[in-house]
Amino acid sequence: MAKLWGGRFTKNTDVVVEEFTSSIAFDQRMYREDIAGSIAHATMLAKCGIIADNEAQAIITGLQKILADIEAGNFTFEVSLEDIHMNIEKRLTEQIGPVGGKLHTARSRNDQVALDTHLYIKREIKDIAGRLMALQQAVLELAEQNRTTIMPGYTHLQRAQPITFAHHMMAYFYMLSRDFRRLDGVWQGADIMPLGAAALAGTTFPIDRQFVAQQLNFGRVYENSIDAVSDRDYILEFLSFASILMMHLSRLSEEIILWSSTEFNFVELDDAHSTGSSIMPQKKNPDVAELVRGKTGRVIGHLMAMLTVAKGLPLAYNKDLQEDKEGLFDTIDTVKFSLTVYASMLKSMKVNGQRMLEVVSNDFSNATDMADYLVKKGLPFRQAHEVVGKSVRYSIDQDKVLAELTLAELQQFSPLFAADILEAISIDSCVKNRNSYGGTSYSAQEQSFVTARAILAQQSEKIIKY
Amino acid sequence: MAKLWGGRFTKNTDVVVEEFTSSIAFDQRMYREDIAGSIAHATMLAKCGIIADNEAQAIITGLQKILADIEAGNFTFEVSLEDIHMNIEKRLTEQIGPVGGKLHTARSRNDQVALDTHLYIKREIKDIAGRLMALQQAVLELAEQNRTTIMPGYTHLQRAQPITFAHHMMAYFYMLSRDFRRLDGVWQGADIMPLGAAALAGTTFPIDRQFVAQQLNFGRVYENSIDAVSDRDYILEFLSFASILMMHLSRLSEEIILWSSTEFNFVELDDAHSTGSSIMPQKKNPDVAELVRGKTGRVIGHLMAMLTVAKGLPLAYNKDLQEDKEGLFDTIDTVKFSLTVYASMLKSMKVNGQRMLEVVSNDFSNATDMADYLVKKGLPFRQAHEVVGKSVRYSIDQDKVLAELTLAELQQFSPLFAADILEAISIDSCVKNRNSYGGTSYSAQEQSFVTARAILAQQSEKIIKY
Amino acid sequence: MAKLWGGRFTKNTDVVVEEFTSSIAFDQRMYREDIAGSIAHATMLAKCGIIADNEAQAIITGLQKILADIEAGNFTFEVSLEDIHMNIEKRLTEQIGPVGGKLHTARSRNDQVALDTHLYIKREIKDIAGRLMALQQAVLELAEQNRTTIMPGYTHLQRAQPITFAHHMMAYFYMLSRDFRRLDGVWQGADIMPLGAAALAGTTFPIDRQFVAQQLNFGRVYENSIDAVSDRDYILEFLSFASILMMHLSRLSEEIILWSSTEFNFVELDDAHSTGSSIMPQKKNPDVAELVRGKTGRVIGHLMAMLTVAKGLPLAYNKDLQEDKEGLFDTIDTVKFSLTVYASMLKSMKVNGQRMLEVVSNDFSNATDMADYLVKKGLPFRQAHEVVGKSVRYSIDQDKVLAELTLAELQQFSPLFAADILEAISIDSCVKNRNSYGGTSYSAQEQSFVTARAILAQQSEKIIKY
Amino acid sequence: MAKLWGGRFTKNTDVVVEEFTSSIAFDQRMYREDIAGSIAHATMLAKCGIIADNEAQAIITGLQKILADIEAGNFTFEVSLEDIHMNIEKRLTEQIGPVGGKLHTARSRNDQVALDTHLYIKREIKDIAGRLMALQQAVLELAEQNRTTIMPGYTHLQRAQPITFAHHMMAYFYMLSRDFRRLDGVWQGADIMPLGAAALAGTTFPIDRQFVAQQLNFGRVYENSIDAVSDRDYILEFLSFASILMMHLSRLSEEIILWSSTEFNFVELDDAHSTGSSIMPQKKNPDVAELVRGKTGRVIGHLMAMLTVAKGLPLAYNKDLQEDKEGLFDTIDTVKFSLTVYASMLKSMKVNGQRMLEVVSNDFSNATDMADYLVKKGLPFRQAHEVVGKSVRYSIDQDKVLAELTLAELQQFSPLFAADILEAISIDSCVKNRNSYGGTSYSAQEQSFVTARAILAQQSEKIIKY
Repeated sequence: MAKLWGGRFTKNTDVVVEEFTSSIAFDQRMYREDIAGSIAHATMLAKCGIIADNEAQAIITGLQKILADIEAGNFTFEVSLEDIHMNIEKRLTEQIGPVGGKLHTARSRNDQVALDTHLYIKREIKDIAGRLMALQQAVLELAEQNRTTIMPGYTHLQRAQPITFAHHMMAYFYMLSRDFRRLDGVWQGADIMPLGAAALAGTTFPIDRQFVAQQLNFGRVYENSIDAVSDRDYILEFLSFASILMMHLSRLSEEIILWSSTEFNFVELDDAHSTGSSIMPQKKNPDVAELVRGKTGRVIGHLMAMLTVAKGLPLAYNKDLQEDKEGLFDTIDTVKFSLTVYASMLKSMKVNGQRMLEVVSNDFSNATDMADYLVKKGLPFRQAHEVVGKSVRYSIDQDKVLAELTLAELQQFSPLFAADILEAISIDSCVKNRNSYGGTSYSAQEQSFVTARAILAQQSEKIIKY
Repeated sequence: MAKLWGGRFTKNTDVVVEEFTSSIAFDQRMYREDIAGSIAHATMLAKCGIIADNEAQAIITGLQKILADIEAGNFTFEVSLEDIHMNIEKRLTEQIGPVGGKLHTARSRNDQVALDTHLYIKREIKDIAGRLMALQQAVLELAEQNRTTIMPGYTHLQRAQPITFAHHMMAYFYMLSRDFRRLDGVWQGADIMPLGAAALAGTTFPIDRQFVAQQLNFGRVYENSIDAVSDRDYILEFLSFASILMMHLSRLSEEIILWSSTEFNFVELDDAHSTGSSIMPQKKNPDVAELVRGKTGRVIGHLMAMLTVAKGLPLAYNKDLQEDKEGLFDTIDTVKFSLTVYASMLKSMKVNGQRMLEVVSNDFSNATDMADYLVKKGLPFRQAHEVVGKSVRYSIDQDKVLAELTLAELQQFSPLFAADILEAISIDSCVKNRNSYGGTSYSAQEQSFVTARAILAQQSEKIIKY
Repeated sequence: MAKLWGGRFTKNTDVVVEEFTSSIAFDQRMYREDIAGSIAHATMLAKCGIIADNEAQAIITGLQKILADIEAGNFTFEVSLEDIHMNIEKRLTEQIGPVGGKLHTARSRNDQVALDTHLYIKREIKDIAGRLMALQQAVLELAEQNRTTIMPGYTHLQRAQPITFAHHMMAYFYMLSRDFRRLDGVWQGADIMPLGAAALAGTTFPIDRQFVAQQLNFGRVYENSIDAVSDRDYILEFLSFASILMMHLSRLSEEIILWSSTEFNFVELDDAHSTGSSIMPQKKNPDVAELVRGKTGRVIGHLMAMLTVAKGLPLAYNKDLQEDKEGLFDTIDTVKFSLTVYASMLKSMKVNGQRMLEVVSNDFSNATDMADYLVKKGLPFRQAHEVVGKSVRYSIDQDKVLAELTLAELQQFSPLFAADILEAISIDSCVKNRNSYGGTSYSAQEQSFVTARAILAQQSEKIIKY
Repeated sequence: MAKLWGGRFTKNTDVVVEEFTSSIAFDQRMYREDIAGSIAHATMLAKCGIIADNEAQAIITGLQKILADIEAGNFTFEVSLEDIHMNIEKRLTEQIGPVGGKLHTARSRNDQVALDTHLYIKREIKDIAGRLMALQQAVLELAEQNRTTIMPGYTHLQRAQPITFAHHMMAYFYMLSRDFRRLDGVWQGADIMPLGAAALAGTTFPIDRQFVAQQLNFGRVYENSIDAVSDRDYILEFLSFASILMMHLSRLSEEIILWSSTEFNFVELDDAHSTGSSIMPQKKNPDVAELVRGKTGRVIGHLMAMLTVAKGLPLAYNKDLQEDKEGLFDTIDTVKFSLTVYASMLKSMKVNGQRMLEVVSNDFSNATDMADYLVKKGLPFRQAHEVVGKSVRYSIDQDKVLAELTLAELQQFSPLFAADILEAISIDSCVKNRNSYGGTSYSAQEQSFVTARAILAQQSEKIIKY
């Protein structure tokens, strides 16, 4: 069909090329933003005397009708019309006649698509921020419910020291708080209005970009029109945010998968978040955790893709940049889903505190506490470490744990051991005594809960302004 | 709804989880392979006496009916049935009764999905191999049509030495030949049959895996059942192949974009492969080349994604591996399109030989030939280089090119210059005399065309066996 | 040799393993940070009564001596001592005796290396921020020197509309401003003190983490000790920042490479930033721009590497995390170099304004202005576009540009054309009239320079606080 | 200092630029290849009459002296000489006078560096192939030593079915065999000689490229000189091979880390391949496995880097391509180390067969066997699955495993259960009866060992030809 840019051309576009270069299959999801942007643009054109008031009114009414049609399912998007912009503009002109053609005065598809994408990403960031907070909330509640649940803390997947389950979960709370901080940064970076850049150089019409920005609730406008149409930083920032967030969820996923294994048996997922096997009925697979771990790859891949697309492109707009959307949209969907399903999964997950306490009571997680005991009796740390190392090796040879050694046995390794050693290395002491700021002790966790609530309150205030 | 693995479970799957973990939205494109694999499996089960002949017949007839229904558009895929396998099996059981349940004897979805993906990728590789050869053919023809078209050859995007357009295009022919070699390697890697691995450990039924392999035209079977269900190497190999191929096309794209600029003006794309601007009617944008260059990012991103997914997964199957398909399918679509549109674009592209000859006649592309001239007169190369360097600088200061210097001027820099220098540095000599094997001379190109035709013939023989 | 953790072990480490697991080859570059952190730690231990004042004094004096030795080149790092921490601690103990062993009280290498890396990245961010501003300054000055230099603006590498060189360069200024904003975010994210987390769970000693933070000029401390030792977000944020920055520089590089070609001939690089060819003396290669464009790959690669490393790791510390440093260090070096060489290259680059004006006067860059002219006379934009499209095609057929058409010729396409059309489409008018905010007009650029200076001033205030 | 390409230039290179653009810091590791290539080139120049025999002899003797000097440590590489080629050439000219300048006749650094890299990668591939086979050998021996060691097989990290440890390890054998196949493909792709392409277009001298290829043991020569200097496919193929190999090792690493945990306790690593904790003496950390898992990120990052570098580069050589080496060299080092340390680690690893048998005897790994039992008694698979699902749930409620249910209890769920059920679901039966080709049965493993030995023999034959 006849293209809007066809004046100079003598041949039509190849049909396969049309399909290849068309973006309507995916950019239609920005129809709300496209229409809102056009309404703001038309309003501004009239306010500045570039079109007449009644022309603007006809355009706006026409656009609102189209919005209603789309939402009612009465709108067929056509590939031959390339993109969401032309699909809507063509319908507008069919409905209200040639005056529809005035809508495109003083703008280009280059700044129009940039505007749509900014509006869209801002809306989705707000949604994601809410879901992120819901997950933080779920993590915090799970921690609060497990104030005194003791588990082994790991380094190198070797049991290291006893910690509380609350302490472990709160590590994720603070990771997610950093994700929120980054997401807020992305929002700030996206809150800048490109319309009025036209193709790249601005326009000869006396437009008012600040007015458009106000109507559409933008904090700033782009200071440079070339930059406005070629900038995709805000998308890259979003993809970086999402990659780090998904990496965090992949770590939690790994742990939930480990904890759900028969070997660990630390938690049990609700049936609603597991699936079974077609051939092994005893299996209860942590599919959701595995999928989220797997989907980390997809999001990192989208970041890689967009960095590769943008690398080495001359200014200003190049068609390569059309590749910015599918990866972004898929990332948004993935992140929204992952956050929500995790909040729900954590809420229904059973924590097997008894099992965790049992295992931690039967290992060497209290070795550091024994070393600290000796240091407090005056031994330099490195020598204390040496003594405990020998005690551990002796215990293993005797098939015992440290708490099962007699005082006499211990004194083989150092005369500093006294009767109070047993109390010093009891699991409860190990936890209670790690009372440094941010440490695993019960009281440190209570402080951490207070801090977490304050962070959530600050985050809420930010979201309100979005 | 009731899940096939639901026996042990007391609760149903969460609806959002169902949607998240379901793969039917994308794996339905393997319906042909799923049915072909099931028919082969049922045939084998009967041959081995595991099910009765009439049971196998009922199953096969039922599957053929389902295939016809899907192709006729009379089949609704249901998200709650998770994947293509269960969608088909459920319909089968509805149609032929409980005997349908016997189809899943001695197999698992783990080996079934592996089989489907192997069959699917083999079919698509055959398709892609044909398209790749069509592009090689188009490149070769374009080269043959431009046997004597001279253009500047570049290094660092600086004009270096005159070459033929044929020579330049043939560089791409040989790149694509390497892509073909790699694609053939991927085919070899994919030509291995996983069915019979069952969940991971093989089966207690007396199956015949070689028989299934023969029916489905596989060259080998997996030697290890655990490997069979957890291997995704063939997908990674395909994505690596595709990433390198797209990188090649991105280089050609970059050149076509440069050549289409007003500054270069070396080629003109057909209107069918360009698009215009909504605001600047004089523009003729090489959108297709830009998009292919951009889509390189997407394919590299999919490779990155899959490597990340597989990293650190314990054996055997993990749900993460479900993430193998969307990136693969998108890569297949992208590669197929890019190859085909490029073949078509090159065929209709006009090469502006006059312009290229003009520019090469007005620059210093023949400087190396002047140095070679001096070397042949006995000057060590490094000194010859020094002499030519000074001549070039002198020419630039005089606003001339080398061929415009008088013999006297040249002899300022070396007494070795004689009257034959002009002939030695004529553009035609520059090309004709680079007659080393693989060089730019006309005769070397004729040899190269012969080699290329032989390569195409060998490739054809490979494809026939796929 | 005997390892500090060797107590329990019966065999020594394999020599190749020692080399493989050792990090001293690269982490020695953090020696300043390691010593500063240890001095702060010893000071705090004494303040809190955990070690005696004279012990702390001996440790601090010993550490200062080691610092002096390293800076004087009198220190041999040993692979068998694994890392910077142990190399320094061993020397300390050799010098001051067993009291040196008390330094490690209440800390672990897990929190020590985290502290070192935070200190190190903060120092380097401050350095990079200064270099980034120097480049912004160079860009701004280049723009200010080219207030009235007119060049063709491009989309799809097709000439679109005339712009000023100042306007084009200022697009990069604003990109770099966003890079600064992101870098500041990375600094905020890194400004958090991990020491006191010990291995993962905190310590039983009565330490004062806030005191350590104050001594080392940190704004905050980690709220959760597990998070403190397993967090690598700040490194990922830095790598994301660097990837986007390098992507920007790759775009500028691409343009400088294009502009330096004979075909464009828009700029000439100084000899100091070019290299020649060993075989083609006429070449002047934009090597620096090419290398920066190429090095974008390396930085993106490091980001991908670190995301892959962190994906799926359970808490808390795992040895995989040792892989965080080499990519970070290489990225820091690459970014520092690229920023500085670019500032220097832009300062000495000659801009060929005459050539650029010439080309823009001989093309269709003023087509949009002709369309705007018609719109202002009342034609709807889409129809104006159609008229101009036909005029362009007609001009091409006549081998003319638009300004060379007679009024009569123009009126063939629309009766709205009048005598004032020539003035409306003069190149100067094209630039001057694009006076929308952020547009290319001279006055808009003056406004942009003011804004830019204000941004630089704000940035300076931020750096001072680092 | 004076550059070889300095003739036209009026200024020297900026010192920082010199350092930035120089490659000598890393390309010096190809000194052997550079000298071997130069000797072959000089020999050919004399054979073809381009230089005199005594000139060639002087050059060759000089080069051999330089080789000896480098290997004796008597050679200082200078940054100002840019690269390995110029460092050697300059020393040559110092030693033998101006005739040294004749060595560069009919070649360019563009084809010289390509030659060096091809020679280098071929040598390293041969080395890596040997190490890969040594690891395969170690895996095979470990499997053969564990013919009857039974362990739980996992899917979704849930215990699924009993398998032999041999079967599990052999999955890695076959993965590594695919790695070998790919490595052989890389070797084929690299076995092609670029010299004679000169800068890009070939040379006017009557050279004999096939003669050079024979001297240097290459199978083929590049058919197109432009392709010869711009091709980096063989590096990308190597990086793809390495990424997939490291991914395999990351999976094995993950398993070894899991198996070394107290929870699994399936294996014990030798002290030589573990490290301890500075604060927790009981820890025995699987550092080597963690590091290899982590280093997977680095290798994938190098692949991404190189793909990004090459994306969108016009032909022929661009300085960006200098970025091909550091990532390649680091990948080679990483792969060599990882292979060798793994072979050694597996040889000394203790397998805890008793523990593994214990756990598999106390779970539901035999559920599929129970289902197969029912199927063999005539129940359709899906119904059998349902019955077993209910039996499993009942067992869990009773705190029993399936083998502990009475026949009466079982018959509640299906009348098909008979006295032979106990034998059918014994662990030994579970393993023995999975006798399908590639399955876990003892006899299938014996067959697999035979196949593996045959594969190793075929691989040996390939390596011999390298």
